[in-house]
Amino acid sequence: MKLSVAAELAIRGVTVLAGRYGEGPVTLSELCDTKDLPKQYLAKIFTSLSRADLVTPIRGKRGGYKLSHPPEEISLLQVIEAVEGPLALNLCQSDPPKCDDVHCALRHVWTELQETLRTKLQSVTLADCVAKEPAI
Amino acid sequence: MKLSVAAELAIRGVTVLAGRYGEGPVTLSELCDTKDLPKQYLAKIFTSLSRADLVTPIRGKRGGYKLSHPPEEISLLQVIEAVEGPLALNLCQSDPPKCDDVHCALRHVWTELQETLRTKLQSVTLADCVAKEPAI
Repeated sequence: MKLSVAAELAIRGVTVLAGRYGEGPVTLSELCDTKDLPKQYLAKIFTSLSRADLVTPIRGKRGGYKLSHPPEEISLLQVIEAVEGPLALNLCQSDPPKCDDVHCALRHVWTELQETLRTKLQSVTLADCVAKEPAI
Repeated sequence: MKLSVAAELAIRGVTVLAGRYGEGPVTLSELCDTKDLPKQYLAKIFTSLSRADLVTPIRGKRGGYKLSHPPEEISLLQVIEAVEGPLALNLCQSDPPKCDDVHCALRHVWTELQETLRTKLQSVTLADCVAKEPAI
């Protein structure tokens, strides 16, 4: 059970923007240098984040990207869903489900697991990702 | 964020064994027919499950597979880890971590998320996957 690489990179990228919220736009090159991220791939990812209104591209010489909302108003779930699509732990949790066995006893187990993860990802904001001290 | 296909098939397979616990071994063909699973792939997966001592292969004419322990003593986490390896939501949760930035503020967030998921997957047993009524 793994986060996609795109979602992992997206979260690293927006975390940098969160840490510099209110200081003006940050270029993709700066973002990539700060977190050692691949620029071409991040450009695609940021297009998805922009479409989801989580980041705003600023044109011009001093352009770049900035968060569209304060860090405490953007959840990890929003970032993940902007690049992965709606959270779906497995086949039966897709919308619509990719397995049509509605009587399968496993479905309620996955529904419950997905709800737990969803609630948790919804409760963590970008502010949490920059404000707390590291665990180690 | 998704369960691997191998883990999804493993869980479907062992759930059939759990539902028929105490009734003798079930052949892979029966398992595949019951849950519409691909036989060759499932054979490989069941080798991993057998190595992890979650299922026991029984040889002979009336052979097949049976659970190595009662359904209420096997958790979803054990099944997933038997085929995916240790649960690792993302790069920094691998053991050892595949990212060596120990001061990254995101690490504690992922550690907490992984712990939530781990606890939940550990609390659900194969008995839960067959005993309850389906949600729909």
